[in-house]
Amino acid sequence: MSNYQDIKQQAYEANMQLPKLGLVLFTFGNVSAADRSKGVFAIKPSGVPYEDLTPDKMVIVDFDGNTVEGTLRPSSDTKTHAVLYKHWEDIGGVVHTHSTYGTAWAQAQKAIPIFGTTHADHLTVDIPCAPPMDDAMIKGNYEYETGFQIMNHFESLGLSHKEVEMILVGNHAPFTWGKTAEKAVYNSAVLEAVAQMALLTQQINPQAPKLKDSLIEKHYERKHGAGAYYGQQ
Amino acid sequence: MSNYQDIKQQAYEANMQLPKLGLVLFTFGNVSAADRSKGVFAIKPSGVPYEDLTPDKMVIVDFDGNTVEGTLRPSSDTKTHAVLYKHWEDIGGVVHTHSTYGTAWAQAQKAIPIFGTTHADHLTVDIPCAPPMDDAMIKGNYEYETGFQIMNHFESLGLSHKEVEMILVGNHAPFTWGKTAEKAVYNSAVLEAVAQMALLTQQINPQAPKLKDSLIEKHYERKHGAGAYYGQQ
Amino acid sequence: MSNYQDIKQQAYEANMQLPKLGLVLFTFGNVSAADRSKGVFAIKPSGVPYEDLTPDKMVIVDFDGNTVEGTLRPSSDTKTHAVLYKHWEDIGGVVHTHSTYGTAWAQAQKAIPIFGTTHADHLTVDIPCAPPMDDAMIKGNYEYETGFQIMNHFESLGLSHKEVEMILVGNHAPFTWGKTAEKAVYNSAVLEAVAQMALLTQQINPQAPKLKDSLIEKHYERKHGAGAYYGQQ
Amino acid sequence: MSNYQDIKQQAYEANMQLPKLGLVLFTFGNVSAADRSKGVFAIKPSGVPYEDLTPDKMVIVDFDGNTVEGTLRPSSDTKTHAVLYKHWEDIGGVVHTHSTYGTAWAQAQKAIPIFGTTHADHLTVDIPCAPPMDDAMIKGNYEYETGFQIMNHFESLGLSHKEVEMILVGNHAPFTWGKTAEKAVYNSAVLEAVAQMALLTQQINPQAPKLKDSLIEKHYERKHGAGAYYGQQ
Repeated sequence: MSNYQDIKQQAYEANMQLPKLGLVLFTFGNVSAADRSKGVFAIKPSGVPYEDLTPDKMVIVDFDGNTVEGTLRPSSDTKTHAVLYKHWEDIGGVVHTHSTYGTAWAQAQKAIPIFGTTHADHLTVDIPCAPPMDDAMIKGNYEYETGFQIMNHFESLGLSHKEVEMILVGNHAPFTWGKTAEKAVYNSAVLEAVAQMALLTQQINPQAPKLKDSLIEKHYERKHGAGAYYGQQ
Repeated sequence: MSNYQDIKQQAYEANMQLPKLGLVLFTFGNVSAADRSKGVFAIKPSGVPYEDLTPDKMVIVDFDGNTVEGTLRPSSDTKTHAVLYKHWEDIGGVVHTHSTYGTAWAQAQKAIPIFGTTHADHLTVDIPCAPPMDDAMIKGNYEYETGFQIMNHFESLGLSHKEVEMILVGNHAPFTWGKTAEKAVYNSAVLEAVAQMALLTQQINPQAPKLKDSLIEKHYERKHGAGAYYGQQ
Repeated sequence: MSNYQDIKQQAYEANMQLPKLGLVLFTFGNVSAADRSKGVFAIKPSGVPYEDLTPDKMVIVDFDGNTVEGTLRPSSDTKTHAVLYKHWEDIGGVVHTHSTYGTAWAQAQKAIPIFGTTHADHLTVDIPCAPPMDDAMIKGNYEYETGFQIMNHFESLGLSHKEVEMILVGNHAPFTWGKTAEKAVYNSAVLEAVAQMALLTQQINPQAPKLKDSLIEKHYERKHGAGAYYGQQ
Repeated sequence: MSNYQDIKQQAYEANMQLPKLGLVLFTFGNVSAADRSKGVFAIKPSGVPYEDLTPDKMVIVDFDGNTVEGTLRPSSDTKTHAVLYKHWEDIGGVVHTHSTYGTAWAQAQKAIPIFGTTHADHLTVDIPCAPPMDDAMIKGNYEYETGFQIMNHFESLGLSHKEVEMILVGNHAPFTWGKTAEKAVYNSAVLEAVAQMALLTQQINPQAPKLKDSLIEKHYERKHGAGAYYGQQ
């Protein structure tokens, strides 16, 4: 029995949610789950079809991206996950997908405008889109630099990763995170739904205004504020 | 055995139709079913996943929004349901979803134009879109005021809630109602289908005219008029 | 045992294909199957959910629209079917749906342009769209007149119902037919697929030209011509 | 037992993936699998529904398009497959579909622009679109000439079929290939996903720039280059 059975199980279950939620084709996505006490995370092995996954196939990696346990090669995006875990010390799960609408916004190099309460139930700003990386970062330690591209864009916008748990990487695709792998997967599905509705909104009304501040605040606070009353206690 | 077993069962079954009809992601929707003789309605508990619902988890609430029976917190939209039941005395079910196309029209702040007979089979006017509420209403008793925003918009347009059983709340999403919870769910699915077809119609022909009066009258009357001949007697 | 068991079974099976192929929501569609030797057709009862259908519930109607056998009320579109059977003596099945993309083109009052070989595999011209009926026809014997609107539009375009087995009725939705009910259902699914691809084609390239004559002829003839070589002999 | 049991089984399984991946309606597609040592390929019989397929129904054809074994007529597109196998000596599978988005781009007569890393993970250039054939080719040996149209377009663009395993045939639909039938089917699904995301990208941002060279190279090389690190070894 592995010392990391818990996070292997969590990562396995969270990965299996991706095809079920329609967020991946073939192996175009990956989820990891961290164990902060041990300084490691469990992540999907690279290129292995979802139908062949088992908890035991998850690879254990430390926050510098070194494999700690497992015979399979970890996801090619492992270093991006590692960077985010290392620098954002309160996240427990990271997800990367090429979901259809989220990826289309990333390819369009556009942040997803906040048009409605579905969006504001989860975050109070446009879903940010980091610009494509510069050539030196791409030709260098690409996946490692992707993590920094994400963090740098958050810093440049003054955003907190605790409040905004999702981003598009320009020309690439969405990344999401959360307290747990399960929450990070939830965020990926929310991003995809919001991305589709935002495109449809602009098609119906190219002059659609963004949501006004009072509605943003109301919806975000009823789910996340001190006096939140959404869900069970 | 609860005194409200009937409406708990009705509300449970109607709620379970939402994911089956593709109208909700996660917990982004809720259905209630009223018992007029007892002055209460059964409603989905807040934030509980559909796969975990049972009839016994439905919460019983009176028409002022007070919980009468149940240990779980009712849907965060409960007060909107309560207001509609209190003021529209002949409705027996209310539904709220964030269905994709309906929500996109709400975010676009546009009524859904009546373009065809699918629409006219159910109502004779554009599906109305109430404007976003003013800031005082939002910062105040928000969900309670949402009910009034709906009723006020119907009044301003001279619409009857008996003939038009659906609305978009601007920047938010659809609400529907009906004699029963089952009928209200049916109306939510109709709204979503009509919303999608209306967008596609405008994409094919930006100058598409609305349905003419004679066709509106014919289709509505054959389903709802004195001489209706659609369905079984 | 009914004298009409064969067509009841055919109509039942063909009706059940509509939800399976994603062509109907609730009861928004109907299929009939004719027995030419007996001068009747079997058609879906009006407003009965597909999951409650059985072969025995099909209603037997003659080509003037009179019910010959069955306790349920036939589809509200029955007279349209009757007119087509009466005047087009070689068809054995008729289908009406409100399928999403086909209905959007009908609402847009536009024929579906022939853009590719998928279209030309089935017909050599745009899928015609009959204009909305005039008010006298609508206020009169509406469903009966719908049949004549379809036939008149074919005549005005010089089309043969043997070669073009589908039409859009403006502001309403598609009708299709064929030698059998099964073939008519097949045509409904083809119309919907072609309708979706035509809209996408125009979105990608608003100046997309129609398919040229040589390709139209080649694809149609390889499936339908004297030297057809598609399918088994 | 047939001498060709292996490729019949491969072709059968690959064909059955098409409906499972949502790439075909009815019989609008076909897959073949080659045995280079015997100079033949197994291909779907023409017009036979997927649910009726068995490995034994696959037809064995040589690289000149002559049937070698099998009682059913092979796919009407057989000669296109034969030409590609004959001239591209390292491919082991060919797929033709009328998948929705891929076909829409073909009907629009537009190559699919390379907008993101999902695309660059598989090829480094726009997905090419061969122009519609000239009338002499169409009226002559049409399916045979389709193979040459594909090869000629690759030659005119200076593309290698080993690096670019997919094409659109203008006004018609996609063709893909690969080392195996399974890989060719994979490529068909990738083409469809990329085609959908490219259209959405242009809808979000009509000025969306193509992916820059450094990102194209990085993503292609990490999957296909000498130092590839995607997947298992």
